[in-house]
Amino acid sequence: MQTVFTISTQGHGLYEMTDHAAAWVQSTGFLTLFVRHTSANLLIQENADPEVRKDLRAFFARLVPQATDPAMSYRTHTYEGPDDMLAHIKSALLPVSINIPVTAGRLALGIWQGIYLFEHRDAPKQREVVAHLQ
Amino acid sequence: MQTVFTISTQGHGLYEMTDHAAAWVQSTGFLTLFVRHTSANLLIQENADPEVRKDLRAFFARLVPQATDPAMSYRTHTYEGPDDMLAHIKSALLPVSINIPVTAGRLALGIWQGIYLFEHRDAPKQREVVAHLQ
Amino acid sequence: MQTVFTISTQGHGLYEMTDHAAAWVQSTGFLTLFVRHTSANLLIQENADPEVRKDLRAFFARLVPQATDPAMSYRTHTYEGPDDMLAHIKSALLPVSINIPVTAGRLALGIWQGIYLFEHRDAPKQREVVAHLQ
Repeated sequence: MQTVFTISTQGHGLYEMTDHAAAWVQSTGFLTLFVRHTSANLLIQENADPEVRKDLRAFFARLVPQATDPAMSYRTHTYEGPDDMLAHIKSALLPVSINIPVTAGRLALGIWQGIYLFEHRDAPKQREVVAHLQ
Repeated sequence: MQTVFTISTQGHGLYEMTDHAAAWVQSTGFLTLFVRHTSANLLIQENADPEVRKDLRAFFARLVPQATDPAMSYRTHTYEGPDDMLAHIKSALLPVSINIPVTAGRLALGIWQGIYLFEHRDAPKQREVVAHLQ
Repeated sequence: MQTVFTISTQGHGLYEMTDHAAAWVQSTGFLTLFVRHTSANLLIQENADPEVRKDLRAFFARLVPQATDPAMSYRTHTYEGPDDMLAHIKSALLPVSINIPVTAGRLALGIWQGIYLFEHRDAPKQREVVAHLQ
């Protein structure tokens, strides 16, 4: 059983998509989500305090700073824009696919866990997430 | 086929749980493990030399230093304690779920691979790991 | 349905293995790949511009610098060679297993996504990747 969720993004940041997945699953099995892009990721993170997402973004913005930062002078892949190679690096550090067990039709997430699409590009995008349940 | 393993942790570090998983699997299929927390992870790593785990912890402690370190001054999520946001960041960098093929009732791990719960909090915790075999 | 792909590596770098996987899958389901090593990873990344792989390697070489770099002075696991502990750290930051949905016999990869074995050791190696389709 497969479907595709399309998530609209308006710049980099974490977009919660827990409800998309929770509404779609049924029975017992497990859910695999897979993002079809190399400049956005899937992430399970705390969904209580928005400051967690703010700080996560700040951490990754320091780990992979802006293209104009001297620390990024090694960068050669530039023709898709200044934020593209940064997005590929973040994409390598974060999950492309995640698995979540489903028990009696409910995602077995912990109480504080939410599912996010983590967008790394500045421009608006339509992101495809393939969902597979079995 | 699902179960939940509960792992007791006493402060941050890597807790091996290979035996829990190895004893539970059977037949051919594959095993998914999923940690129901946003401040601990699952990790497959070398289980021969304990110095590997020591050095891994040292690396992550440098990448995400203590809350008192000036490099962490961007942190805004503070009310759950000084080690909480650090734990969320490490949690984003490391796996929440892992998949291991099972062949004839045995985990298809490489000879040096062990399964660990990587705890990031200082306080003792009971961590839940959902196991799903199919 | 399981098989093992063996990938020969000649030093660190990204070795594309998309064709191995694409030729093996069939029907609808999903594919899990699992690398049986703690000093190499699997990675889904852009397979259009080779500069992306070059820059990714540069990023990881800065994040986890050579053993002679003062930033790595905490390292205690040394007896398997100067590049071994660096490889374990990279191995913790990158995927050991990946899942890819399969739709009507085709990998549901995005148009720019390729599958790579990311080798972290300098010496030539034979790397085993277990594939499981269901």
